[in-house]
Formats: sequence, structure tokens, C-alpha cells
Amino acid sequence: MLNFNYAIPTEIFFGKGRIDVLGRQAKRYGAKALLIYGGGSIRRSGLYESVTGILEENGIAFLELGGVRPNPRISKVREGVDICRAHGVELLLAVGGGSTIDTAKAIGAAVYHDGDPWEIVLDRKKIKNVLPIACIPTIAATGSEMDAIAVISNEETKQKLSTSHRGMFPKFSIMDPAYTFSVPRDQTAAGTADIMSHVFESYFSANKGAFLQDRLAEALLKTCIRYGPAALDEPDNYEARANLMWASSLAINGLLGYGKEASWSVHTIEHELSAFYDVTHGAGLAVLTPVWMEYALNADTVDKFAQYGVNVWGFGPGGDPYALARAAIEKTREFFTSALGLPGSLGELGIGDEKFGKMAERVVARKTIRGFKPLDRQDVFNIYKAAL
Amino acid sequence: MLNFNYAIPTEIFFGKGRIDVLGRQAKRYGAKALLIYGGGSIRRSGLYESVTGILEENGIAFLELGGVRPNPRISKVREGVDICRAHGVELLLAVGGGSTIDTAKAIGAAVYHDGDPWEIVLDRKKIKNVLPIACIPTIAATGSEMDAIAVISNEETKQKLSTSHRGMFPKFSIMDPAYTFSVPRDQTAAGTADIMSHVFESYFSANKGAFLQDRLAEALLKTCIRYGPAALDEPDNYEARANLMWASSLAINGLLGYGKEASWSVHTIEHELSAFYDVTHGAGLAVLTPVWMEYALNADTVDKFAQYGVNVWGFGPGGDPYALARAAIEKTREFFTSALGLPGSLGELGIGDEKFGKMAERVVARKTIRGFKPLDRQDVFNIYKAAL
Repeated sequence: MLNFNYAIPTEIFFGKGRIDVLGRQAKRYGAKALLIYGGGSIRRSGLYESVTGILEENGIAFLELGGVRPNPRISKVREGVDICRAHGVELLLAVGGGSTIDTAKAIGAAVYHDGDPWEIVLDRKKIKNVLPIACIPTIAATGSEMDAIAVISNEETKQKLSTSHRGMFPKFSIMDPAYTFSVPRDQTAAGTADIMSHVFESYFSANKGAFLQDRLAEALLKTCIRYGPAALDEPDNYEARANLMWASSLAINGLLGYGKEASWSVHTIEHELSAFYDVTHGAGLAVLTPVWMEYALNADTVDKFAQYGVNVWGFGPGGDPYALARAAIEKTREFFTSALGLPGSLGELGIGDEKFGKMAERVVARKTIRGFKPLDRQDVFNIYKAAL
Repeated sequence: MLNFNYAIPTEIFFGKGRIDVLGRQAKRYGAKALLIYGGGSIRRSGLYESVTGILEENGIAFLELGGVRPNPRISKVREGVDICRAHGVELLLAVGGGSTIDTAKAIGAAVYHDGDPWEIVLDRKKIKNVLPIACIPTIAATGSEMDAIAVISNEETKQKLSTSHRGMFPKFSIMDPAYTFSVPRDQTAAGTADIMSHVFESYFSANKGAFLQDRLAEALLKTCIRYGPAALDEPDNYEARANLMWASSLAINGLLGYGKEASWSVHTIEHELSAFYDVTHGAGLAVLTPVWMEYALNADTVDKFAQYGVNVWGFGPGGDPYALARAAIEKTREFFTSALGLPGSLGELGIGDEKFGKMAERVVARKTIRGFKPLDRQDVFNIYKAAL
């Protein structure tokens, strides 16, 4: 097990009706908030009225920044920074999915940066301070409500990059699984794939001594496998939504990654898909994950894939590890495509091979993929090709 | 899944050589520390010199409170409070096992209480504030380095009670698995039983919707089953010590209990053993746990015990749930007695039946055991009897 620092300062108020803590908690951080949200879903669900009502009752003045889109844009961050500076905002309250929360995090950091906000995405060392952030997530997916990471896209340069800072940990998040009852089928499926991909990125590591973390990772995978399809079948199944929601936070808050090195291969490869094609992140991950697994399968990695088959998919132990590994990868593909109904190829996402060269170039320019299965430009290109 | 609040503010610096952060971290909380420890083991190991050297180099003045014993006494807490008040101590630094850490927590709370320190053990509501606490644990067992609980014994009244307060969460803990290489065989075994018992107390709950938490609990149990015996065989096996040490923290920091009700039956029953006989807590738990499991096995609980057999002990699923449950309980008993070499009966601990009536009385007077298997005075008496 590698050395690690554990520090997860975000407070979570989890469960039915927990919005009751919003007024008291928000007042700890300020009297002027910027309410950040996406499209119309929080208005349709009544959550907008509920939140703004509580802010008013508690004497918290607020401004609004709506219209955050999936794969959130730096232009929206700039807009938020201008509002914060003009009005002296003290608290950023993100109500929505990961894009909304990530936008809040980037605004919170960029407010304290003198240059253009994109600079703090390109170089996290430029982040010196972050406005307090609070979240009310409405989908189980990115886990952004309990981590210190923001992923932001630049529509001009076609870049999608992540940045992070300790101050980006939300101060608190209110997680009510009932808010996710109305998440559409395809988004529920993509969110489940996103959670599983976060777990895979930690699980498939070259480090072997972190036994406990591997078993925790398997716990989360089993949870997604059980409750992803259950939430599709029955969108208002509280137990399913609650388990998925808590899994989404634990998948990426650090718990699974402590004591190991993670390569974050599939995320890095997927980010270029989203940057060029604006695909749903989780759908892109679902396509790329089994292809990456097949590509990564070799003498060094086969035992880990076999272990995955035994511990997660319930295969009997023993027997040929390659057979176990291949069967586990096939189970993963089937789960994404059949049980969750996600696309199985880039073709289904409307993506051709035109830009694979440029995309592969940018993957390796951004990040050297080491560890479990090192990947160079050609490898990444091959993975895109195999995913067509 | 029940509603819950997640808040684990303790920072952990985990791994080899992490003592390097002590000076910088300690200075955040004050310039005068009380160094609290147990017997001579930290002198023999060199840890005493290492810690005091770092405090001196960093200009942190310190006083000392040594001689904390297992099942730590309120008299030692009183002694610590007097030192803190006389010298204006700002930080409590506990170096040792759970008893040392619990003593620090109780001192930290009692310093701010005008009456006798035992009052804040009897009634946690009397705790208003707690001095900052830092820990360097030297055994994997209680998990006290990452929770907000202190268990203190009163030698006059023969009571052993727990108290807690949010301020009792240590500010930081430095966890170096190498410090546990020198833990003797019987203490390593008892520590492993203590960790497993913490997990069992959350795992065997009447709540059924917390699927994720149950899988996390199984991850910790599998870790103990693998690495407890490994640490006995090879005391300086870093991987074994590291996995046990991190399991000890996660077993009781809240992670497993969120979203469920736990009865803490076996701990409550064991506390009276320790109160009257001063037995090693983990050894008492190892004796009582399988007996409690047998007593708790009924139509309401059989499925959970069967699930435990399948998911933790690797039994094939299907078949008679009672047979699976009984086999899982027997595996638990064998693990404690054969694999860990712990006692299998109260007789082996030198305990007769003389005080069972009084002990059972006090268990139920202190706490109503509800939930998974409700227990009244007679039930507790029967469990003591069956454990003879």
C-alpha cells in the first residue's frame, strides 16, 4: 500500500427531505449566494421554488446563473465570475448535475484569479483560494458533490480539461435520492457507467498491496450492477436511487484511490471524445471501457481481470485466468449495452474515424498514461479504432 | 437506506515515515502539548525519542502523561486535566493504542467541564468543547484515531462507558503501519477481533436497504480474515499491517454505519466483562461474538447470516439458509480460536458465572438492545452462560 493523505472535509446530509438543513448550513458561509443550475428540470420538479424559498426565508440574498450545459463551458464560468465580482457573492450554491457543480467550482477558484478563468483550468497551481461551494446534486454520476475536481470545456480550443484544488471540496452537499427519480432513462444509465468507470480507474492499478481498497471498489461495482438496472426499471425506487447516489460519491472522493496509483486511462481517452463531439460522458465511457479492457489484457494484467470476474461477476475461482478475464470483459460490455441500454460503439454515437489521429495526439500531449497498462499515441489510436 | 449525516473531519497521514508531518501539523494547533502514552513500548521502539525530538525541533513545549493502561481509567483522565489546567496545554498528542487515545479524548473534553471528569462520561451532553487531539496509533484495533468516541472505565464503580462528541474527532492522525510490527502476537489477534467486531456491529442490522454499506463491511471482514493471520505469521509484513491498520480506522469512523441502525450488542455485553474482570477487549469480543451469533439466529436474521457465509466465507449460494448460517458462525468461531489463537470461552479468560446476574442487569440498565436481535436481561444472562 502506498503512502497517502486522507482528507475529505465535505459534510453530507443524505436522505429524504434533507433540504431542511439548507438554510442553517448556507448561513454559516455567507448572506449572498449565487444559485447555479442547468436547464429547466429543477423548475419542473419544484426544486427551484423549494431552494429559493428557503434562501428567502433565511435572509440569504441570491443571484442566478442558469443554463449550464453538459460538458460545461468556460464561457459560463466567465459569466459567473463577473456576477460574483459585481455583487460580492459569498457562497456558490450548485443545484443540478456534475456540470453545474463543476461550473461552481471553477467560478469559485477563478474569482480569486486575476487572469482569464481558463488559466486556472490549464494550470491548477494558479488556484490560490476558492469561494465556499454547496451542492444539491440531482443525478448520481460524477461524484463532484464530494470531490475537489472540476472538468471544464473550452469551446474555442476544443479542450476538455480537469483542474482541482483542496478548496474545491464542497463545504456541504445535500443528497436526496428522491431528486433523482425524474432523471431520464439514458441519463440514469450513463450516470451508472460513469460511477463504474471511476471505480475501474482506481481498481485497475499496477499496485498490488492495497487489498482493502480493491475489496471496497468491488463493493461499489456490485452496487452499480444491482441498482443501475433497478433504477431503469423503476425510476422511483428509493433504495436503488439511494445506493447509486451514495456510490457515486464514494467512487471518486478518494476512498478507493488511497494507497494506489491510478492511471485514469479511459477518462483521459474519453475526454477527447467529449471535447470534439459533445457526447454524454458516461455513454462515451461505456463504449471505451470494454475496448480498453481488451487492449489492456496481457500477462501483467490478466490476474487482476480474472479477480474482477470472480469477485464482481461471481465466476467460480480457478481455471484459466485468460478465460476468466475475457468472460469478465464480455460481462462488462453486455452490462453496459444490454442491461443499461447504452451504446456499444462509437458509430452508435455518430462518431467516425476522421479525428482519431488528432484526438490520440492530444490525449498523450495532455497526460502520459502509465501504470496498469501504459498507452502511447498509437495505443490510444488503436483503442479509438477498435471502438468504432 | 436511512438518512444520515457524513462528516469525518480527521486528516490522516498514512504510511511509512509519515512522522515527517508531525511538526508542521502540530504547530497548527498550539505551542504547548501534553504527550500521552502507555507503558514502556514507545520508549523501547524509539518512537518516544522520535516524537519528543520533533516537538523540540519545532519549538513545541510539552508535558507528559505516561502510564495509561488498557481499559483506561478515569483517575488518569483527572490527572491529565490537572496538568492541562496548570500549564495551559493547547494540544493533546496521544501516542499508543486505543486506551491512550481515548484518555486524550476524555481529558480534552473534561478540561472544559467544571465538575468531575466522570460526569462527561456519564452524560455526553455535558461536553461543550474539546481541546485539539492528535494521534499516533501503535496498534490496529479500536479505530479511535478516526472516530469521536472514548471508552473510559471507573475503577471505583466498576463501570466501563463510552462517551462522544464531534470535537473528539482527532484533528489529525499519523498512521505508520511499521509502528505495529512490534505489537505482540496476542494483541495483534485481539486487535483483529476488535476490528471485526466493529464491522459486525454495523453489518448485522435490521435495516435492509443499505446494500452498499453491507458490501463495504464485507470488504473489511475479508481484509481482516486475510491479514490477521498473516500478521501473526510474519509480524513485520508491511502489507498485512497496513491493510489491518486502515481497516481499523474505516471499521468505526462512520462509513459502515451510515444509513443503518446498529445495535452494538456484543460491545455492550463485553463492556461489563472488561469492567469486572479487566480482560482484553478484543479477547472478550472473540469469545462472545460466535455465542451472540448463535443466540441471534432466527427466522428474521437467518438470511443475513447466510449472506455473510456466502459473501465473506465464500460458501456457494443456494441451499438451506440455516445450514449456511450455522456454517458461517462456526467459521467465525474457528477463525478466532484457531487462526488467531484467541480464547474460545469465558472459562479460558478465568471468568466464572458468579457475576453474570449483576453484569446482565447493568447491560440492560445502560442500554436497551434493540434492532437486529432485541436482548433483555435474561437474554444477556443466557449469552454469558453459553459463553462459559
